[in-house]
Amino acid sequence: MLGLMQEWPLLCHKLIDNAARQHGEREIVSRSIEGPIVRTTYAEIHRRALQVAERLDRDGFGLGDRIATLAWNTARHIEAWYGIMGVGAIYHTLNPRLFREQIVWIMNNAEDKAIFVDLTFMPLLEKIAGAVKSLRKVIVLTDKAHMPQTTLQNVVAYEQWLDEGTGAFAWKTFDENTAAGMCYTSGTTGDPKGVLYSHRSNVLHAMIAAMPDAMGLSSRDTILPVVPMFHANAWGLGQSGPMIGAKLVMPGSKMDGASIYELLDAEKVTFSAAVPTVWMMLLQHLEETGKKLPYLKKVVIGGSSCPRALTTKFQDNYDVEVIHAWGMTEMSPLGTLCTLKPDCAGLEGDARLDIQSKQGYPPFGVEMKVTDDDNKEQPWDGKTFGRLKVRGPAVARAYYGGVGSEQFDQEGWFDTGDVAHIDPGGYMQITDRAKDVIKSGGEWISTIELENLAVGHPDVAEAAAIGIQHSKWGERPLLVVVRKPGREPTKTDILAFMNGKVAKWWMPDDVAFVGEIPHTATGKIQKTTLRQQFRGYRLPTD
Amino acid sequence: MLGLMQEWPLLCHKLIDNAARQHGEREIVSRSIEGPIVRTTYAEIHRRALQVAERLDRDGFGLGDRIATLAWNTARHIEAWYGIMGVGAIYHTLNPRLFREQIVWIMNNAEDKAIFVDLTFMPLLEKIAGAVKSLRKVIVLTDKAHMPQTTLQNVVAYEQWLDEGTGAFAWKTFDENTAAGMCYTSGTTGDPKGVLYSHRSNVLHAMIAAMPDAMGLSSRDTILPVVPMFHANAWGLGQSGPMIGAKLVMPGSKMDGASIYELLDAEKVTFSAAVPTVWMMLLQHLEETGKKLPYLKKVVIGGSSCPRALTTKFQDNYDVEVIHAWGMTEMSPLGTLCTLKPDCAGLEGDARLDIQSKQGYPPFGVEMKVTDDDNKEQPWDGKTFGRLKVRGPAVARAYYGGVGSEQFDQEGWFDTGDVAHIDPGGYMQITDRAKDVIKSGGEWISTIELENLAVGHPDVAEAAAIGIQHSKWGERPLLVVVRKPGREPTKTDILAFMNGKVAKWWMPDDVAFVGEIPHTATGKIQKTTLRQQFRGYRLPTD
Ligand SMILES: Nc1ncnc2c1ncn2[C@@H]1O[C@H](COP(=O)(O)OP(=O)(O)OP(=O)(O)O)[C@@H](O)[C@H]1O
Ligand SMILES: Nc1ncnc2c1ncn2[C@@H]1O[C@H](COP(=O)(O)OP(=O)(O)OP(=O)(O)O)[C@@H](O)[C@H]1O
Ligand SMILES: [Mg+2]
Ligand SMILES: [Mg+2]
Repeated sequence: MLGLMQEWPLLCHKLIDNAARQHGEREIVSRSIEGPIVRTTYAEIHRRALQVAERLDRDGFGLGDRIATLAWNTARHIEAWYGIMGVGAIYHTLNPRLFREQIVWIMNNAEDKAIFVDLTFMPLLEKIAGAVKSLRKVIVLTDKAHMPQTTLQNVVAYEQWLDEGTGAFAWKTFDENTAAGMCYTSGTTGDPKGVLYSHRSNVLHAMIAAMPDAMGLSSRDTILPVVPMFHANAWGLGQSGPMIGAKLVMPGSKMDGASIYELLDAEKVTFSAAVPTVWMMLLQHLEETGKKLPYLKKVVIGGSSCPRALTTKFQDNYDVEVIHAWGMTEMSPLGTLCTLKPDCAGLEGDARLDIQSKQGYPPFGVEMKVTDDDNKEQPWDGKTFGRLKVRGPAVARAYYGGVGSEQFDQEGWFDTGDVAHIDPGGYMQITDRAKDVIKSGGEWISTIELENLAVGHPDVAEAAAIGIQHSKWGERPLLVVVRKPGREPTKTDILAFMNGKVAKWWMPDDVAFVGEIPHTATGKIQKTTLRQQFRGYRLPTD
Repeated sequence: MLGLMQEWPLLCHKLIDNAARQHGEREIVSRSIEGPIVRTTYAEIHRRALQVAERLDRDGFGLGDRIATLAWNTARHIEAWYGIMGVGAIYHTLNPRLFREQIVWIMNNAEDKAIFVDLTFMPLLEKIAGAVKSLRKVIVLTDKAHMPQTTLQNVVAYEQWLDEGTGAFAWKTFDENTAAGMCYTSGTTGDPKGVLYSHRSNVLHAMIAAMPDAMGLSSRDTILPVVPMFHANAWGLGQSGPMIGAKLVMPGSKMDGASIYELLDAEKVTFSAAVPTVWMMLLQHLEETGKKLPYLKKVVIGGSSCPRALTTKFQDNYDVEVIHAWGMTEMSPLGTLCTLKPDCAGLEGDARLDIQSKQGYPPFGVEMKVTDDDNKEQPWDGKTFGRLKVRGPAVARAYYGGVGSEQFDQEGWFDTGDVAHIDPGGYMQITDRAKDVIKSGGEWISTIELENLAVGHPDVAEAAAIGIQHSKWGERPLLVVVRKPGREPTKTDILAFMNGKVAKWWMPDDVAFVGEIPHTATGKIQKTTLRQQFRGYRLPTD
């Protein structure tokens, strides 16, 4: 027997409908690509998103078409998202920080038919557009006055194109499992893989993200999504924000400390989210200028492990609550958030930081487990680590084009490729990537732990641990170190510093000093390249 | 093109799974029917709910079977809910306050096959069980030691029945649109009508209810659901609580001021929800004893209009935030909540109370509009009232058995039967029930407004306004008044008090004094009966 409740499909345009209806006058403030700070409202964004949908429809784009965006976080980018989804097409956020060939490969893989592009990326697009066979239209996110000379074909200024709309258009409707958005992974461990979000998964993810024990977002918040919309949906903020009607502050192309501080202060931002490096730049700016953060209440930090020092500074010096979070493109992206359960809400000092340095626990809607290589579930003892697997309505069940199918099992579990342990309180901690973990005599050594330890040395700027082939143990750790400018720590200094802070057999067999460690386009350490560089390296212990 | 996200059906047992996994040690405290306060945990409730499912399955109950509960809010009632839903059957909460014949009619209408019953209601069930043809099993929510002598057939003590389980059982799975629960409306305006919730609607409603701008529930809250599970799902708290892992305090059969205070204080409750009369009893108890509420932060008040004085007292004398809410059985039940948008968050005193006396605005997932009798949408001007219509994933699309189909239209709107206006800020205010509104010369007069005004007179205990036939105007208002004990206000006193506070043509044509106003089983004024009592009444103006 079925229930007798309404069929009300979870469609993304209902989020912006709700924003316009209940929070129509609430502001969305953007640092525009043209320069000035511009202000609009949800009512206005809603009206213009409908116009985007109308124009796309008239230009022949619709259900299932992939429409790329190569753009910073601005109100126009939000309008484009909802307009694309509202006509049944699929927004495909491109990460401009990827290498040019990767972008071409991704666009061809996705068969993008049109693209919304910021002025910033015109030179880039001019170089690659010819290589993307499917591309039929380029919409430049600016007005006629700011349109540059261009070699691009079928190109139009967004505002001019919008103005051709009549304003009489209604959202298309379709099944809630219809594809709504697309995003490729960052390509840290291999080729980027496409993830295809549905309207349902986006809406559920928006709800999950806003919950009090997740990000805890209210209409009274002012949200600054520093994390780009092209980086895993801006962690859901482009959907959660309209859903609850919060004021949004969109940083455009400027993510340096001074620019972010300026917005935080002028717009009285209460909530923000970004990767650790952005926050380090902000804190450095604050320290240099002596500025404070009187309005900011809470920041979410994720994308890579949040250094303890960052949490301490935010909380102790600026009275800003830090929520460490873990997620991935394949999870829309939220996986776990480190909010405090009642049992640990009263902790202080180091005991509190010990919890907060973990990646947290999953909200309702995300299931997780840790298994060994034989898929046997591991105990929640806070030390036994293994493969982290997840399930949920906003988790991928496959990659676009069917690649990576070995990561998905029959029972619906997705192997994240991360290695983690879970403590008795349910808090998960990432210790490694499965591809990076060092296997010594059959046992696993966590590279993240070695690196976190090494960068605690005052003369170390950056460190990466990789496994080097060893005739007796299979693999043994090599620590690759970049020294701080003007400092000359030796191998002995560094090993002495680490000694006793980690199990004896985890200690690196050697330390190699380099001028630079290779990074991916999104700023993560590129261990594949690093391992290539050290192929054939001979350890002194071998 | 469909998204490539996981099929993860929104099933209710996932709520309790999540509670057990992430919040296993969190307490659920109940005032037991046997007397003492008993304590259990989510892990334990989860284990026992699985056992309920196993036992039901073994007894031959399953997919689609209606299983009644006639019980107060206790941990056992929660276990029964999840056990019933987890085997694919449908919990059917019976309101014990209804008249005996109504309960028999409802059980026969639903064709309940089994019933979980509290000791309290054994005498009642003994009288009616014979009249319910479909009933095959009675499970008394107690242990063997407390089982009374009974004339009931096929009866067993819950604990004994549970003990026959092996503990090896897994939830059944099925489509998320499968029926999960059933509840009949209160029968204020006619016969109670059955609403059939689905797993999907229950889960989405739980998420909607917990949102920061709705109830705002966190794992750090301690929740006391005074509102009974048989009154529209305890407003979702039996689902939202486990979803987020909050400590629950279940009041059992005692809802008087002293008993509720005792739990609020001893268990350090931070959040609670109930109808206005419960809160009036609590405040009276506090005023008599001089007690305070140091832990309680927030109360939700709904079910009928929340008097302004109640809000003032809670906020000014006890520093407890009041959230006025409107809903109905057909909406799972949440419709609107009166949390403050940023534009009015800074208001104080009367300006703030003016907002808080409204029923609020709908969260994402509830759409509303107000129409005239021709289904034409009315402006949001805070005065033009009309029929309140709603849509959403947790709103009924039909009643059980197909009655009342005229309330549902083609576009999915459900006519609530309430009359309301919406202000420019989106805040909705209920002015009447459509069946109660007085139509004078084609214009509508709000009975709720007349009543709220009249009870402001210091000598008036209760007041009800009804329409009396009038040869010239069609209908004119009669105010029916119950005087406070020992007070003797006259018609002239009351009309003089009301004069000038309401439009001239809204003023009652007459005042009738009575010893008592009839109420429904759930404590609402029974205007149908009142109108019958005054049938043929001749107004002095006619
Ligand atoms: N808080 C965190 N702590 C540690 N690692 C994190 C954290 N948040 C995210 N990560 C890492 O980032 C990964 C997700 O990143 P993303 O989806 O952007 O692509 P990627 O995994 O870097 O690239 P690819 O999958 O293409 O190799 C996670 O699997 C995890 O390894
Ligand atoms: N905050 C409130 N202010 C005013 N009225 C309210 C409020 N909350 C609920 N109500 C009234 O209660 C109704 C819902 O009550 P419920 O579902 O328990 O059954 P009922 O409408 O009283 O009974 P029936 O539908 O059988 O006549 C709403 O339609 C509304 O009239
Ligand atoms: Mg990855
Ligand atoms: Mg009703």
